[in-house]
Amino acid sequence: MRIALLGGTGDIGEGLALRWAYDSDHEVLIGSRDPARARTKAEEYETELDSRGREVTVKGFVNEMAADRADVIVLAVPPYHVADTVESVADKLDDEDVLVTPATGMKRDEDGFHYHRPSAGSVTALAVEAAPDDVPVVGAFHNLPAGRLADLDAELGIDTLLVGDDEDAKETVRLLAEEIEGLRVLDAGGIANAPEIEGVTPLLINVASNNDDLHDLGIRFT
Amino acid sequence: MRIALLGGTGDIGEGLALRWAYDSDHEVLIGSRDPARARTKAEEYETELDSRGREVTVKGFVNEMAADRADVIVLAVPPYHVADTVESVADKLDDEDVLVTPATGMKRDEDGFHYHRPSAGSVTALAVEAAPDDVPVVGAFHNLPAGRLADLDAELGIDTLLVGDDEDAKETVRLLAEEIEGLRVLDAGGIANAPEIEGVTPLLINVASNNDDLHDLGIRFT
Repeated sequence: MRIALLGGTGDIGEGLALRWAYDSDHEVLIGSRDPARARTKAEEYETELDSRGREVTVKGFVNEMAADRADVIVLAVPPYHVADTVESVADKLDDEDVLVTPATGMKRDEDGFHYHRPSAGSVTALAVEAAPDDVPVVGAFHNLPAGRLADLDAELGIDTLLVGDDEDAKETVRLLAEEIEGLRVLDAGGIANAPEIEGVTPLLINVASNNDDLHDLGIRFT
Repeated sequence: MRIALLGGTGDIGEGLALRWAYDSDHEVLIGSRDPARARTKAEEYETELDSRGREVTVKGFVNEMAADRADVIVLAVPPYHVADTVESVADKLDDEDVLVTPATGMKRDEDGFHYHRPSAGSVTALAVEAAPDDVPVVGAFHNLPAGRLADLDAELGIDTLLVGDDEDAKETVRLLAEEIEGLRVLDAGGIANAPEIEGVTPLLINVASNNDDLHDLGIRFT
């Protein structure tokens, strides 16, 4: 399968790209608005993987081209770029594709980070609104610690939650996510259940910043 | 120390009462609007503890009297009774007492459970608003699985998060919470950070209801 990571030059995109390229046999494409930057980062990922004895090809493209070539397209962009990123690649998508959205909205004040819920109900729902009607959207990877994800020496031992209203698309993402070693994949229901998942991300930051011995936290349901 | 569990006849109150009575030497008082019910449940808890070789006294009182006698008062009541419960015991409280609030607001629809955020910002903030100005409030025990908590055979192995703006009160609650075996206590900052904690409770229910092998879930930050 071909997985495009739009915004794959950012921290969560880097982590997912490295993990899938290392742990699975899927082809990973790095997308960016700037194709030169996408190619540079793709080469960096190849070098990192090669240094660990994993000789794989990671290619970089402008977002549209990455989306066009892929079966699963991950919107690894900041929340305020989710809608415009979907729109920029919309005519490259069809009902065989699956869009995946890991973004969450946050704002910071003197107390800490807080969930900033968009009027659509969630950032995940925002992606659904922006997507063509026939293209299924799955929310996943919202609460992953980006630094640990991108460090292939770091063990994960954490959970990720899936939400989506298209069961086939959700199953596709579940299988892909399960190929990442140390990641347990749990179903959290439909898109309407995304806000409570997205709200965990600021909580993870608040917990890390208030406890000296904790950082780059993930979550485990137990 | 004396701990009053107002609404201590309900499920979260029962769990905290049994755990503290079993794991610590603190005196546990059960409060209810109905003193006869408080006494009946207190006797049930004593019997349960006695059957496990723990001979302790658990007394039941009307909420006001339980609050009057205690140093730490836990509002183990539904979210819509938090404010009136605080008001009903307000003249029994002073600045040496600590109020603890574990309640969270939820509503259910066809997709699952959702966080129902009160206009105060959180149920925890609602307790702060209702409390006399000189009585500190700490949010804690929001995301505990009630069934497992009340089953002394069940291992916890989960976290609870504290929020509060009074560091001394928070420390008091931290020490008490740490006496419950298998419960790790983490600081999540000030009262303003409560909504993201309260939102985890409906998420735990959604995850349990969408994954066959999971139920009565708690959370672990890792």
